[in-house]
Amino acid sequence: MGRLLLNCDIGESYGAWTMGLDADVMPYIDCANIACGFHAGDPSVMRKTVALALTHNVTLGAHPAYPDLVGFGRRSMACSPQEIQDLLHYQIGALDGVARAQGGRVSYVKPHGAMYNDMMANPAQLRAVIEGIARYNAELPLMLLAMRDNSAAQAMADEFGVTLWFEAFADRAYDNVGRLVSRSVPGAVHHDPETIIAQALTLSRGEPLIASDGSELLLNADTLCVHGDNASSIAAVQRIRQALGNTPAQLSAS
Amino acid sequence: MGRLLLNCDIGESYGAWTMGLDADVMPYIDCANIACGFHAGDPSVMRKTVALALTHNVTLGAHPAYPDLVGFGRRSMACSPQEIQDLLHYQIGALDGVARAQGGRVSYVKPHGAMYNDMMANPAQLRAVIEGIARYNAELPLMLLAMRDNSAAQAMADEFGVTLWFEAFADRAYDNVGRLVSRSVPGAVHHDPETIIAQALTLSRGEPLIASDGSELLLNADTLCVHGDNASSIAAVQRIRQALGNTPAQLSAS
Amino acid sequence: MGRLLLNCDIGESYGAWTMGLDADVMPYIDCANIACGFHAGDPSVMRKTVALALTHNVTLGAHPAYPDLVGFGRRSMACSPQEIQDLLHYQIGALDGVARAQGGRVSYVKPHGAMYNDMMANPAQLRAVIEGIARYNAELPLMLLAMRDNSAAQAMADEFGVTLWFEAFADRAYDNVGRLVSRSVPGAVHHDPETIIAQALTLSRGEPLIASDGSELLLNADTLCVHGDNASSIAAVQRIRQALGNTPAQLSAS
Amino acid sequence: MGRLLLNCDIGESYGAWTMGLDADVMPYIDCANIACGFHAGDPSVMRKTVALALTHNVTLGAHPAYPDLVGFGRRSMACSPQEIQDLLHYQIGALDGVARAQGGRVSYVKPHGAMYNDMMANPAQLRAVIEGIARYNAELPLMLLAMRDNSAAQAMADEFGVTLWFEAFADRAYDNVGRLVSRSVPGAVHHDPETIIAQALTLSRGEPLIASDGSELLLNADTLCVHGDNASSIAAVQRIRQALGNTPAQLSAS
Repeated sequence: MGRLLLNCDIGESYGAWTMGLDADVMPYIDCANIACGFHAGDPSVMRKTVALALTHNVTLGAHPAYPDLVGFGRRSMACSPQEIQDLLHYQIGALDGVARAQGGRVSYVKPHGAMYNDMMANPAQLRAVIEGIARYNAELPLMLLAMRDNSAAQAMADEFGVTLWFEAFADRAYDNVGRLVSRSVPGAVHHDPETIIAQALTLSRGEPLIASDGSELLLNADTLCVHGDNASSIAAVQRIRQALGNTPAQLSAS
Repeated sequence: MGRLLLNCDIGESYGAWTMGLDADVMPYIDCANIACGFHAGDPSVMRKTVALALTHNVTLGAHPAYPDLVGFGRRSMACSPQEIQDLLHYQIGALDGVARAQGGRVSYVKPHGAMYNDMMANPAQLRAVIEGIARYNAELPLMLLAMRDNSAAQAMADEFGVTLWFEAFADRAYDNVGRLVSRSVPGAVHHDPETIIAQALTLSRGEPLIASDGSELLLNADTLCVHGDNASSIAAVQRIRQALGNTPAQLSAS
Repeated sequence: MGRLLLNCDIGESYGAWTMGLDADVMPYIDCANIACGFHAGDPSVMRKTVALALTHNVTLGAHPAYPDLVGFGRRSMACSPQEIQDLLHYQIGALDGVARAQGGRVSYVKPHGAMYNDMMANPAQLRAVIEGIARYNAELPLMLLAMRDNSAAQAMADEFGVTLWFEAFADRAYDNVGRLVSRSVPGAVHHDPETIIAQALTLSRGEPLIASDGSELLLNADTLCVHGDNASSIAAVQRIRQALGNTPAQLSAS
Repeated sequence: MGRLLLNCDIGESYGAWTMGLDADVMPYIDCANIACGFHAGDPSVMRKTVALALTHNVTLGAHPAYPDLVGFGRRSMACSPQEIQDLLHYQIGALDGVARAQGGRVSYVKPHGAMYNDMMANPAQLRAVIEGIARYNAELPLMLLAMRDNSAAQAMADEFGVTLWFEAFADRAYDNVGRLVSRSVPGAVHHDPETIIAQALTLSRGEPLIASDGSELLLNADTLCVHGDNASSIAAVQRIRQALGNTPAQLSAS
């Protein structure tokens, strides 16, 4: 691929509570991972989020989660493969309903938080997610973590005819297989803007990163995950966008 | 119209709790008003309910509600017209997502409980519902209460190009404008099977009922609301189906 | 009474969402109206809020609400008197449980949002609240709005042996019976710090305010409701505290 | 101890949904493990459950759970020790609030479902539960599973001054360390009434059971967990009560 799309978790307010600077980050991203009501995002927040995304020609992605509002979807829950698929269908459909009312459609899926982590750690759960998407609409890509070796995930996706969009991080350190270094480890999160920009450019050029053990790590990423939490993360997104030397462009939606 | 379709609220279990004899009533109805998660019906219950309906060629209807699980959607909540529409879009979409995964689609909308009552009592809320459906997909009919005079509702629906499906009740007494007599009034609910069958046949033939004040009340109903709560209501549905002299048939879905 | 206590709604964060500058306002108030989980405030937020209040010798009040997290308890719900009491007992008890674990106790009750407004508008609901408190522990005072004429509320409280703490607002205009002028009316909310301080001092001295129709309005207030939402409201609280010429002091808890 | 008390999970209805034959089982038990709103049991259900228990002089126990209504508290959630304690304090307090309003008090604690299983499997979580109870009120006993060797749990409880009530099951097979054989294993659950009665009597006499590997297993149980789910489990409770040759008696509450 020729360009690295920017994706961002968004629409994570709920009721009277606000979270994230959605209006500030939206102009700089390509893909919005929109909360679907189970970890954040009530129906009215979702309507406003979709409207904002459509205004900026940002592609709408469903960001489904475990049913854990108080835990923000960050706690693993023991759900069966069938329950995982039910959660996906409900939440993708709910966002698509909100989107349809504004002339938009959900165009990809990125599980949130613990559901994302469990999918990356457990092949049976990744299979449940991929099969669940295929049952809903195989034309919706699944966004997941780019690893050194994506062959198992790719084979599974091929089996169901689902496209994978691999994402990477410009502000995180990686281990030698391509996992994110745990936030509890010093140096796991890059705070220096120059480091972040450099890592974004490296990923964009298809060149290898240096993993935490000093080895080269090549990640074939389709998209970069950026953040709209606060002013400094917005500034980083702006700089990344500028460094990548292109303007946001709408993905070809399914 | 030539025949009176039977509709039934269904899929009102939640998590470990079961409610209603869904499997027993499904073979006898035409339209299933399926709970969408806000008053009942979690994603897994919804999946099972959709599967059961599809097995019996029953048309899938969304049965959206206020966000009030503990109150079963029976308590009026002061929602703005915009919030009503957000609730509709989210819940219709969620059920449609669950249905799509099984090759089905939502084909009509019937608000539940207090949302239904508020819609019938308040023209601004009826307008919000109709406009909300039109924004989502104007080909989805709205199911609402048949009254003596439906002209205001019909004019509103015509403005938005939305079809109305009027429903009547075989087991309830009516006042002279076509409102259901409150359950707190003696005689409001018919328990005698013969009375119920007779009222169903009267409605089916397009003949007037006798209202609570003794006047004739003509209700032009497209569908009859039946119940699957318990064995006696199932027996009533079977007898109504037999009396109407036809078999369930799938509605033309949008 | 000789001094006007300051009370503030507090502990209104939830899960990953924060609301209010609790740590900034706590040093300046006497009474904390702590959210109990139904409109805001999960168990962990409640623990932190109680700890902060105890550190500053602030009296712990339960701030129970309708079960409406997404609506922040601001929407009226049709609850029976018995349901109102059940909601009170559950939420007061829950906060008391969190408080006990830190050596504190709930010392008064102030219903939140729509539950508060409904109580002020509807004598049957006020009666339900007072009787509910009496059944739980008649030594817990009820905080409610000071009006020109509080005799009906006082008679009801006397019947059940419940103490009333009347609250007034320094930043709101009043009509001639002592109701707050609706926020939708221009001039309903005072933004000028000098006006707010002046109104606080007038209330503190037991002198009459000027109501929206120009008449004198004497409110016998025990406590003033202040806000910790943002920096300017915190500044106002600090100035009110200074103007009242005293320091926060713990109420005699029941 | 001279007698084996009967405890039962109870009050697990929610809103419009009913579960369990509470009124039928209550006359035959000593201790009611009452749901506290997080896996089942809304405030109104809790009030009715407390009233029923008090009528039959049944001791009130808090049955706190993870916040997972749709999963009925049966799914493990990754909660920190502090969060576990917050959940306990909130839910014990909530039930105590409902109880106080009727002249009752919570007298012991039995975690529910996955919270119970996690406590038995993970010493750090057992420690969190015991310490959490001690912080709330060390006079509340903790009900947990009797094992062959309870010394570690007992030492932990002694450290915090908390009493343990060990429970056993008359209708379940045990492995040789005293764990319940998984329900997925054939023979794990006894259905034959004679077998159940015999196991109850064996436990009551302080004699050893035969574990699944044929070894003798001595469980020093204070209480037997019985079930009120359906007519046959009620019949079993009646027969157990008769076999034990005593009548229900109120425990000495703290």
